Amino acid sequence: MHAYRSHTCADLTKANVGETVRLSGWVNRIRDHGGILFIDLRDHYGITQVLCDPDSAAFADVEKVRSEWCIRIDGEVKARDPELVNAKLPTGEVEVFVRDIEVLGASNELPLMVFGEQEYPEETRLRYRYLDLRRESMQRNMTLRSDVVASIRRRMWGNGFREFQTPIITASSPEGARDFLVPSRLHPGKFYALPQAPQQFKQLIMVSGYDKYFQIAPCFRDEDPRADRSPTDFYQLDMEMSFVEQQDVFDTISPVIAGIFEEFGGGRRVDAPGEWPQISYRDAAKWYGTDKPDLRNPIKMQDCSEHFRGSGFAIFAKLLEQEGTEVRAIPAPTGGSRKFCDRMNAFAQKEGLPGMGYIFWRETDGAMEAAGPLAKNIGPERTEAIRQQLGLGVGDAAFFLGGKPSSFERVAGKARDVIGAELGLTETDRFAFAWIVDFPIYEKDAESGDIDFEHNPFSMPQGGMDALLGDPMDVRGFQYDLACNGYELVSGAIRNHKPEIMLKAFEIAGYGEEEVKNRFGALYQAFHYGAPPHGGCAAGIDRIVMLLADEQNIREVIMFPMNQRAEDLMMQAPSVPASDQLMDLSLRVIPQE
Amino acid sequence: MHAYRSHTCADLTKANVGETVRLSGWVNRIRDHGGILFIDLRDHYGITQVLCDPDSAAFADVEKVRSEWCIRIDGEVKARDPELVNAKLPTGEVEVFVRDIEVLGASNELPLMVFGEQEYPEETRLRYRYLDLRRESMQRNMTLRSDVVASIRRRMWGNGFREFQTPIITASSPEGARDFLVPSRLHPGKFYALPQAPQQFKQLIMVSGYDKYFQIAPCFRDEDPRADRSPTDFYQLDMEMSFVEQQDVFDTISPVIAGIFEEFGGGRRVDAPGEWPQISYRDAAKWYGTDKPDLRNPIKMQDCSEHFRGSGFAIFAKLLEQEGTEVRAIPAPTGGSRKFCDRMNAFAQKEGLPGMGYIFWRETDGAMEAAGPLAKNIGPERTEAIRQQLGLGVGDAAFFLGGKPSSFERVAGKARDVIGAELGLTETDRFAFAWIVDFPIYEKDAESGDIDFEHNPFSMPQGGMDALLGDPMDVRGFQYDLACNGYELVSGAIRNHKPEIMLKAFEIAGYGEEEVKNRFGALYQAFHYGAPPHGGCAAGIDRIVMLLADEQNIREVIMFPMNQRAEDLMMQAPSVPASDQLMDLSLRVIPQE
Repeated sequence: MHAYRSHTCADLTKANVGETVRLSGWVNRIRDHGGILFIDLRDHYGITQVLCDPDSAAFADVEKVRSEWCIRIDGEVKARDPELVNAKLPTGEVEVFVRDIEVLGASNELPLMVFGEQEYPEETRLRYRYLDLRRESMQRNMTLRSDVVASIRRRMWGNGFREFQTPIITASSPEGARDFLVPSRLHPGKFYALPQAPQQFKQLIMVSGYDKYFQIAPCFRDEDPRADRSPTDFYQLDMEMSFVEQQDVFDTISPVIAGIFEEFGGGRRVDAPGEWPQISYRDAAKWYGTDKPDLRNPIKMQDCSEHFRGSGFAIFAKLLEQEGTEVRAIPAPTGGSRKFCDRMNAFAQKEGLPGMGYIFWRETDGAMEAAGPLAKNIGPERTEAIRQQLGLGVGDAAFFLGGKPSSFERVAGKARDVIGAELGLTETDRFAFAWIVDFPIYEKDAESGDIDFEHNPFSMPQGGMDALLGDPMDVRGFQYDLACNGYELVSGAIRNHKPEIMLKAFEIAGYGEEEVKNRFGALYQAFHYGAPPHGGCAAGIDRIVMLLADEQNIREVIMFPMNQRAEDLMMQAPSVPASDQLMDLSLRVIPQE
Repeated sequence: MHAYRSHTCADLTKANVGETVRLSGWVNRIRDHGGILFIDLRDHYGITQVLCDPDSAAFADVEKVRSEWCIRIDGEVKARDPELVNAKLPTGEVEVFVRDIEVLGASNELPLMVFGEQEYPEETRLRYRYLDLRRESMQRNMTLRSDVVASIRRRMWGNGFREFQTPIITASSPEGARDFLVPSRLHPGKFYALPQAPQQFKQLIMVSGYDKYFQIAPCFRDEDPRADRSPTDFYQLDMEMSFVEQQDVFDTISPVIAGIFEEFGGGRRVDAPGEWPQISYRDAAKWYGTDKPDLRNPIKMQDCSEHFRGSGFAIFAKLLEQEGTEVRAIPAPTGGSRKFCDRMNAFAQKEGLPGMGYIFWRETDGAMEAAGPLAKNIGPERTEAIRQQLGLGVGDAAFFLGGKPSSFERVAGKARDVIGAELGLTETDRFAFAWIVDFPIYEKDAESGDIDFEHNPFSMPQGGMDALLGDPMDVRGFQYDLACNGYELVSGAIRNHKPEIMLKAFEIAGYGEEEVKNRFGALYQAFHYGAPPHGGCAAGIDRIVMLLADEQNIREVIMFPMNQRAEDLMMQAPSVPASDQLMDLSLRVIPQE
């Protein structure tokens, strides 16, 4: 017989009754029932009940065993009495009578219980991660993550993509976030950097003629702490294709993403890729107040300015006289009660706005009545016009925010989320996707008026060189995001592969050729040697797994995460290096004041 | 029609004759044949011949095109005349008459030709890697690497393994080589390290109960330059299993490795895993002079001491009076000529030995004669006994090295390689594997007599605690390598998962519990909470691909490698950081003298 097991703890069924088997695993629970010891023996695959009565030669040894000891037992499989069958357990029809036991690994007193999903401070969980990872929920999350990544690979291969590894120790790539630096020992005073993303490499791979690239790529950013982000690194499905337009990228990646959510979504509804809307960046802001709208929520905001222009509601009427202002309505079907409207008004105030005007419609004496201070101020005609525009009726409400959109859009988006959730309008058990397209290439600093890249400088402007010769603020890029349930899941672009258009694009943002060469030298040079049109995208693996696992904290889907202070409590990183290590690197630490 | 292509450059056959098609790709070659322009248009998938005659409206534009320009053409597919069919090309039966052309990316003058496999200095190739990677041999190597890694993943999944990613920014792990350090911005004066291997993490994953782990893992070592090694990082197939013994690991990984070599070996013979010998470390040294023998070479060395003890060959006879000495024979079938024997003697001298004694057997006047100075000195009886022991005959030779094995074994191993190759004894077109087992746990410093770990301190000693209580130099580990064609392909062990045995093992090497806690704190702690028996191995991906691609230089199988000075010439890494980056990290560079 094998030294450790004839079966896993998930294998045994009635068919094994009478067999002598060998199992290895951990003591999930041990109980004493009338002098008989019952152990739930657990391994990665399942749980089997084993028991030992005082007649067994192993009894004295079994008595010593505690939770989370790793043991090997030999025993005889017996059928359970019908009334003791555990239908929830695949092995629930049998139990194993222990004849022999070997302690493979004993355990000290546990700082953290594995059995039962007890809450512990995150510090404890991360310090004893090897115990935390034994818990059922973590086994499920880690297994899910591994299976998701494997499925992504299978799907990408199936689409004719090959995975190529790009360097991890490389050059600084000024892409917005802070680089992690790695001092070079052979070249004192010089540093490598860990890549923020394989952006330049994947584009170089296209210039090298590989046609279809993907990688499950680690990305490194020296981020300041944030709850939903790893402070050091994250993984993305990075992909790039040559000889493609924007729609080709969508047609390629959409079925991969949809397939993953179908496969691992646990039956939650997944919108079919053919139905994913393409929404312009501008419309997304207008309708949803964000470029990552949650389309499970049916609320779509609308411009109601005309109804307030010159109306009796002086605040809005006056505001609308200024250029660039607008009154935006958030329709709230079924939200037609003063209580709800007041609560939402308070919400807006908590978010830093003066408040949110509202109208709600109720039935009074068999007739529809528009209630709320706003309705009184603008009068019945305008109120009715608003109701008709928004398609609302008795029992519904609408909220209004006014000003420059940039001043209220963020709160409007949040209000839409809260309204959708509180009124039960937002579907649960669904994954709703939308491509957000036509991102502006440039943004203008409100104070200085300086123009800079809005997102990243690698995207091809729609209209190419001609577009760059017009008003920069009108230039849209072939740049896109995929939003899912309120998160940005994918981000990508058709790249600017023409050196002369690249130069012009940088010039508009105030950078000369020298700057381009310094920042993106390899790519800029490479584009002078027969660069193909190309584009692609990157999808956040951690985010996808979080959505599938229904977790809010990224550390629930990473095996050995840093804490929010970028420390690995288990491995004790970072730490003070030996002085000869620093000497080797020609470095000295500047003492802190 | 699609903006860039209706077909790839590998698609068109006779079946497409008459169709109007659109192709995109690079100008592999352009030739003028009697006023007609012929372009070999190349993409990742293949080559299609396109041509343009002066009647075409596109002629003037096609005339401007040069090598490696990226172009899109529209044209009509025509059958080639039978005498012009190129049977070597899948598209060789057709050609495309260009009606329209668009330059997608023009090219400057090329620093490196893509067409033809011309030699260039490595510096040029690495600086313009995006051009170098377009070459046929590089496309083949990169594609091979990607396919090998994909196949490894498929095979591991098929065996019930899951891939889990372990941290890349982590703690220093003193495993022998130098760490790359990463300064922490949030914790001034503290540093992370890049992992030399995921060794501790994979063992922690086993303690966490995941049963079967693998990872295509990047490993980082700050190595001094060596031709066959990357100076910064390399990839390994890292795997670990719980509840296993050594043979279980062999039975799991052997079919994976054999399968890869079968799949990608291009028809070269692959020894079946069932036939892979298991050779003890000691026997490997004795028979082959190395722990990574090339078993395509049938030569097996033998101890011939007894034939020289007290013989007339004074040098060996005297030498054998000292303890620990031996005379080792390298049989050389078909090497029986003075010329060959002298050449091998010269080889040994070049390698720093006084020379290699030899005997060779020839036929003189119809009788076998043993020739060479050695034979004369020891006389015919001893010479004949040697011949019989080695199973040699007329036309064969044997070489002899004497002394302490440690003084000659390395050269003996090399001599065996040279003899096998020069005499044509070593098979080519074959992958020959052997497990090398029973590695000693400890080594003794020749001068100080100090005992230290021979390899790594994680292996379980054979015989457990009992063995550690005896002579340390007799302790063998459950530690193993897989050798293939003279290279170490895989290395692994059954791990020491018992804290008390771990402590004892370290104590023998002179380390106290504090040292163990400092060096391997997380693992040592984890072993106190119910650790399962476990073991695994790691296989070098770069090495496997090099063997399959028949390349000697690791840079031929890495997409964007460093040069031997650990510089990325294309990306210009490492480089001098901005002073505020250093400031952020609280670091100062010590000026070089």
